[in-house]
Amino acid sequence: MSKKELAIGVLGAGGNIGHTHSQNIATYVDGARLAAVYDLNTERAEEVAKTYGAKVMASAEELIASPEIDAVVIASWDGTHADLAVKCIQAGKPVFCEKPLATTLEDAKKVVEAEKASGKRLLQIGFMRRFDPDYIKMKKILDSGELGAPLMAHCISRTRSHPKNHTTEQHITNIAIHEIDICRWLLGENLNEVAVRFPRATCFAEGTCQDPQLVLMQSDSGVLIDVEVSGNSYYGYEILCELVCEKGTIRLPVAAEPIVRSYLQCGQAIPEDWTNRFVVAYQEELQHWVDYLQGKTDVPGPGAEDGYEACKISDALIKAQTTGQWEKVEA
Amino acid sequence: MSKKELAIGVLGAGGNIGHTHSQNIATYVDGARLAAVYDLNTERAEEVAKTYGAKVMASAEELIASPEIDAVVIASWDGTHADLAVKCIQAGKPVFCEKPLATTLEDAKKVVEAEKASGKRLLQIGFMRRFDPDYIKMKKILDSGELGAPLMAHCISRTRSHPKNHTTEQHITNIAIHEIDICRWLLGENLNEVAVRFPRATCFAEGTCQDPQLVLMQSDSGVLIDVEVSGNSYYGYEILCELVCEKGTIRLPVAAEPIVRSYLQCGQAIPEDWTNRFVVAYQEELQHWVDYLQGKTDVPGPGAEDGYEACKISDALIKAQTTGQWEKVEA
Amino acid sequence: MSKKELAIGVLGAGGNIGHTHSQNIATYVDGARLAAVYDLNTERAEEVAKTYGAKVMASAEELIASPEIDAVVIASWDGTHADLAVKCIQAGKPVFCEKPLATTLEDAKKVVEAEKASGKRLLQIGFMRRFDPDYIKMKKILDSGELGAPLMAHCISRTRSHPKNHTTEQHITNIAIHEIDICRWLLGENLNEVAVRFPRATCFAEGTCQDPQLVLMQSDSGVLIDVEVSGNSYYGYEILCELVCEKGTIRLPVAAEPIVRSYLQCGQAIPEDWTNRFVVAYQEELQHWVDYLQGKTDVPGPGAEDGYEACKISDALIKAQTTGQWEKVEA
Amino acid sequence: MSKKELAIGVLGAGGNIGHTHSQNIATYVDGARLAAVYDLNTERAEEVAKTYGAKVMASAEELIASPEIDAVVIASWDGTHADLAVKCIQAGKPVFCEKPLATTLEDAKKVVEAEKASGKRLLQIGFMRRFDPDYIKMKKILDSGELGAPLMAHCISRTRSHPKNHTTEQHITNIAIHEIDICRWLLGENLNEVAVRFPRATCFAEGTCQDPQLVLMQSDSGVLIDVEVSGNSYYGYEILCELVCEKGTIRLPVAAEPIVRSYLQCGQAIPEDWTNRFVVAYQEELQHWVDYLQGKTDVPGPGAEDGYEACKISDALIKAQTTGQWEKVEA
Repeated sequence: MSKKELAIGVLGAGGNIGHTHSQNIATYVDGARLAAVYDLNTERAEEVAKTYGAKVMASAEELIASPEIDAVVIASWDGTHADLAVKCIQAGKPVFCEKPLATTLEDAKKVVEAEKASGKRLLQIGFMRRFDPDYIKMKKILDSGELGAPLMAHCISRTRSHPKNHTTEQHITNIAIHEIDICRWLLGENLNEVAVRFPRATCFAEGTCQDPQLVLMQSDSGVLIDVEVSGNSYYGYEILCELVCEKGTIRLPVAAEPIVRSYLQCGQAIPEDWTNRFVVAYQEELQHWVDYLQGKTDVPGPGAEDGYEACKISDALIKAQTTGQWEKVEA
Repeated sequence: MSKKELAIGVLGAGGNIGHTHSQNIATYVDGARLAAVYDLNTERAEEVAKTYGAKVMASAEELIASPEIDAVVIASWDGTHADLAVKCIQAGKPVFCEKPLATTLEDAKKVVEAEKASGKRLLQIGFMRRFDPDYIKMKKILDSGELGAPLMAHCISRTRSHPKNHTTEQHITNIAIHEIDICRWLLGENLNEVAVRFPRATCFAEGTCQDPQLVLMQSDSGVLIDVEVSGNSYYGYEILCELVCEKGTIRLPVAAEPIVRSYLQCGQAIPEDWTNRFVVAYQEELQHWVDYLQGKTDVPGPGAEDGYEACKISDALIKAQTTGQWEKVEA
Repeated sequence: MSKKELAIGVLGAGGNIGHTHSQNIATYVDGARLAAVYDLNTERAEEVAKTYGAKVMASAEELIASPEIDAVVIASWDGTHADLAVKCIQAGKPVFCEKPLATTLEDAKKVVEAEKASGKRLLQIGFMRRFDPDYIKMKKILDSGELGAPLMAHCISRTRSHPKNHTTEQHITNIAIHEIDICRWLLGENLNEVAVRFPRATCFAEGTCQDPQLVLMQSDSGVLIDVEVSGNSYYGYEILCELVCEKGTIRLPVAAEPIVRSYLQCGQAIPEDWTNRFVVAYQEELQHWVDYLQGKTDVPGPGAEDGYEACKISDALIKAQTTGQWEKVEA
Repeated sequence: MSKKELAIGVLGAGGNIGHTHSQNIATYVDGARLAAVYDLNTERAEEVAKTYGAKVMASAEELIASPEIDAVVIASWDGTHADLAVKCIQAGKPVFCEKPLATTLEDAKKVVEAEKASGKRLLQIGFMRRFDPDYIKMKKILDSGELGAPLMAHCISRTRSHPKNHTTEQHITNIAIHEIDICRWLLGENLNEVAVRFPRATCFAEGTCQDPQLVLMQSDSGVLIDVEVSGNSYYGYEILCELVCEKGTIRLPVAAEPIVRSYLQCGQAIPEDWTNRFVVAYQEELQHWVDYLQGKTDVPGPGAEDGYEACKISDALIKAQTTGQWEKVEA
């Protein structure tokens, strides 16, 4: 490793995803080290710092400004992403920002513009599925052209560990957002029109949350995507995707688990949550970010514009939830 | 077999499905024999008659009226179904009518009313999937209630042997019609609102045919059904269905084929067409019809009203193809 | 059906397999009818006769001798097979004999010789797996030569419904006998050396029965076959087979059952017993027998010599159970 | 990371497996760094050293003796393992030794005795399958006891990338050695009797090599293991294992690959070689070694005694190849 290790600071290191990123930087990512952390919850920040031998900073601003920090990971509460990203960009610091880029389209635009003003590509967004080996293989087969042009995509996103107080809108911005991005990436084009339709709600949905929902999206070339979005999937966590092409189809495999034959039944375990499903993807997105910063690859990861496009599509979907009509995505 | 064998006459015996029904009556169905056949194509009629030891009738009317014939199978061209069915009913003869019941809603209504006027249940319609062992097991699991209420159904109907000159509408009346009926049967309720959305068309679609299409239907209790309807599925014939319930899901299995490992690949054959997929269902629907006529079961098969309901839903879907809106199914 | 229907008599019609054959002849097989039955248990014989409209005969001999009977099915107790088969052959009657052909090699030889003396091919033996669509497809792929020469076969035969008082030997003559025959048929050659090795016995084995056992057999060209033979397989009934060839392998598929996702698990039902596994094979072996007798096919089903070869291999395996050595099969 | 990073030296770093270990230490393993390498091929050693920022040592002895090196990885040619392991142990250095521990039983014994004389547990052997997540899950299910006692194990080890000049014996010491160890580990007991039987050889076997071979082994409690060992498996690399227990069975899953439907076929890719199959296992075995050395876990990895036991079983198998008899493993 001739290159100097990058000193990384993590904002929101005390949360679930913040801890995952901190751990991956400290123990997995090659060419980087966990230098500092910050979290509103000081106790949690200190715990993480101690475990991985990092420093605790007194504020996000201090961490961003510190000359000891080469690059920043934003893993704090969704509502803070845009503001902190802009601060990093203005400080000239490369930043890895968890999705979503912002909670409003306006804020997302501010980040995109800040980056444009900087004249540099400084932000990578946490659309980690692009680094999942299964999706990568899927895209490779699609791009080979041997199955002809893609026509449809059937997706399923089921999660059982979803926060109980989530709203119908949040199932778009927190769950379906991944299908939005991965379909854009798989197809290599934008999505321009969307709709939502609700089946009867599951008995496990709480309050006014309409769950599940069927999300429909159409790409510029006409590929039609349907997504079952379930936030209260009692039986387990599952991500499925089938790309239907002119000459064949490609399906995402399900994770391999031992096959158990027991009394009159042959079965395999289904995971409780996402913890084990995207382990490699979470590691590789950070490795790629660091590799890009160190010049080991020319190919940037997903950027601010991908976060911004996803926000536009989310917005159209949330509108479609109310109108019941097909809605155009803002150009 | 203490019961006397029923003498069956088949109309349109020279066609593809007519031949299948003739053969099944002659060689599989217990309690019935193939007594007579009729087909516009006299040569084909004589061939079938000779193979299975049956008589050739000079016209459909002669066959229906013949005192030698106990019951009639209608397997002629779609446009003739309703008229022939009414004639059978008016002659007091039990009739098995291939789907669709009629090509217009008006004609379908005439059949329903003729049967009502007769005061007897005289017609069974050829929705053979209700007799497929896999769908039967699926319904059994659903009806057990162990997975909670159904919420969604994801269906796929792909056929590669579809007549090349078929229209976008015929992919509803000839392909999706099976999903319409099987979903009504699985869920035990009616469908009341429908929509259609088109992806880009496959290069294999001919003329003005928009293929594939995504069919959406919603049941009285709110179950949301999506169906990929592909009439030019290059790679093979495939029928899939997943019922999503509150506590789990149920999937139709794919047919078992030897698993072959060859150079860097592990695979199974996919069938070219429907020939082998629903063999048992085609046999069992006729067996059930005969059993019902002989009083061996009290449970009638799908009837004129099921054919009529399917026509109403087809009609709404064809309307939705043009409007691009959700359309109500006529009450 | 220009041919006259064959009048079939079933010996041992009151037993499990006897009833299955009687029903298949009465309701499935084309070109034959169930004319008469006999069973030591008169009550059971009368029941079957009544259900399918057949006559009850007073003795096996009467049935065999009757001019009303064109052909005979032997489904009585194993110990009676050889004697009855010889009687049928001497009466010049075609006979379908359930496996095994005989319980001693000597008796099996008598049947073979009786048939030879008759100058005609009069006996088909009940190795029904040769008529199973899955094995047929497997053989077709093997015989295509695309995977090169066969080298090994890994087989598993698990049954949970096995009579509790069965002996270690009977697991050969009643269970492994099917693998003996199907491997001979798949490979198109004989087996000439065998061995048996015992693992620790399952807690479900009763008395002195050593269960399971690993059966090893080698073919004339050197294909090495291993078979797990389990007579007390608690979890269900299962028949598996993988042919390992030079360029790839072929596996028998497992029966298709709905795929159920429920709490943290994805599974499929495993059958309790053989009832549903070989339905088609049991129907088709009788149909083939009748077709052969009526000259519709030139290809005879498995015959006396196949039953005799299987007996020789069984005998060698039973010897090997005791010696613990590889034993030659009698030439 | 309060603990100081261990400085690791790799012997034989220029070879295939040596490079993998070097890379894993440099970029994956937490708590260790690649400090030095040695290889007979100086050019290759320098390449690896440069890539990962390590030092090149002039000899194995220099590396072992160096005060800069805390622990040693032996990844050199098989014939050097035992001698180098003894040198490390005598120098009081913890050592990770690739399998096999030695190429003769005598040499293996010397390592065991050297470690005993040292009074410390200093050696971990490279039986990496114990760290494969799939085998770990399999063992967890077995050890839960819910399926009763194990009775049999059916294993398959197919590799297509095997060196062409390998001998029949080397397919034991290099391929089957993994099944020997993993079965000992899964069952938690030793194997005491073994046999080998040869089918006809594949056309892809070169020279006098008898390939494939069927390896049989029996454990102290009577579990009977069969292993298909194929060193010239044309179609791909595959490791399978089914544990047959009294109440059910457990199968190792195959790696998840996208499911592709193309012309009349549904398939998944099979890997060409082991490269991708055991990635995690190779990383985790080194991580575990380092964790153990740093006191983060009390549970040692597989040790010299495991390597020694595997050698004894290999020896018995090689004897059995010639005798054709069951051979006792030296006690």
